[in-house]
Amino acid sequence: MKIITISREFGSGGRELGKRLADILGFDYYDREIITAIADKKGLNPDYVERMLENHAWQTVPLTYRHSFTGTAMIHVPHHHTELLSEQTQVLESIAKNGKDCIIVGRNADFILKNYAPLNLFVCADIDSRINRCLERAEQSEQLTPKRVKQKIRTIDKNRARTREIISGSKWGDRSNYNLIVNTTGWEIKNLAPAVAGFITGWFENTK
Amino acid sequence: MKIITISREFGSGGRELGKRLADILGFDYYDREIITAIADKKGLNPDYVERMLENHAWQTVPLTYRHSFTGTAMIHVPHHHTELLSEQTQVLESIAKNGKDCIIVGRNADFILKNYAPLNLFVCADIDSRINRCLERAEQSEQLTPKRVKQKIRTIDKNRARTREIISGSKWGDRSNYNLIVNTTGWEIKNLAPAVAGFITGWFENTK
Repeated sequence: MKIITISREFGSGGRELGKRLADILGFDYYDREIITAIADKKGLNPDYVERMLENHAWQTVPLTYRHSFTGTAMIHVPHHHTELLSEQTQVLESIAKNGKDCIIVGRNADFILKNYAPLNLFVCADIDSRINRCLERAEQSEQLTPKRVKQKIRTIDKNRARTREIISGSKWGDRSNYNLIVNTTGWEIKNLAPAVAGFITGWFENTK
Repeated sequence: MKIITISREFGSGGRELGKRLADILGFDYYDREIITAIADKKGLNPDYVERMLENHAWQTVPLTYRHSFTGTAMIHVPHHHTELLSEQTQVLESIAKNGKDCIIVGRNADFILKNYAPLNLFVCADIDSRINRCLERAEQSEQLTPKRVKQKIRTIDKNRARTREIISGSKWGDRSNYNLIVNTTGWEIKNLAPAVAGFITGWFENTK
């Protein structure tokens, strides 16, 4: 079984890259599906689940949290939040146990599924190219300005970095945590996807 | 014409990867040849040239150096050193002007040849795997210990980072400066090279 995880800077095209790779390689694709699965199991609204997992409650969580996940030092952490994190781990584990080749975008799957030896990609791009990508895909009605998009990118990436550090103790986006970092600056994802697929094919052909 | 530059952490196997990619892709390969060319032109010893370019004289160079390369603020920089840097740029430019597909390892070629839009790779690996690679390739007579190798790795990478910053003003190893970062941890380079070659092929096929 082959598992590919994709972590990414907001606006870098990591999600689209994931989808296109899944198409090219014939892999299953998971992204929003994970949130939906958690929400279904818990009888919660998916948007709420996503917000809780990405933006919430970190302020009150001591950095030793990851060492006491099943311990007694959990009083700082809102109950819902730990439940959701634990549910997320279970959903990811069940995807891995499925045994089917798959691509998982986000959710710190690279860390949570590390025992399955996934191929871990990180996708980045320079800030201007990320702003442009966000503006292109935004609805007209949102009336976004480049300045607001930039703020949004910073906020989301800061949350991702913090979530990553709390869950794994290691640094988001640091080259030591990924097998491959792809910079999409200047590329349309559809043109870059075949190159990344070329790498992946070679990677799995030669993995012992 | 296709130019690939390879920057790398010491001991990550970046040089071997470069050679193997050159073989697979049928590209020219430059590495030590650049030092030799500079040494020949200047009538200097190649080892001396390499040492000067990599380890020397940075202490006395103000960080604004890069802005005053042709200016008057050069009194801090040993004469030889600036000559060698300038010669290095010329040698790299002449390689690029050759018009033949090539791979260049080191020498900040990604920055110096940026107008030629090279594909810039950075090769890294975790510290243990780099120590092991260094020990494996060291001669028995060197009697290296892991501790000494680790010190050597730290020193060389520190010099590389500093040299990069002085020449380009941008950070060595930072994902924003490269198109692709490959982590070789756990891999024999000969098994990983086909995957990277797969990426490169896709990259150049789809470059506008």
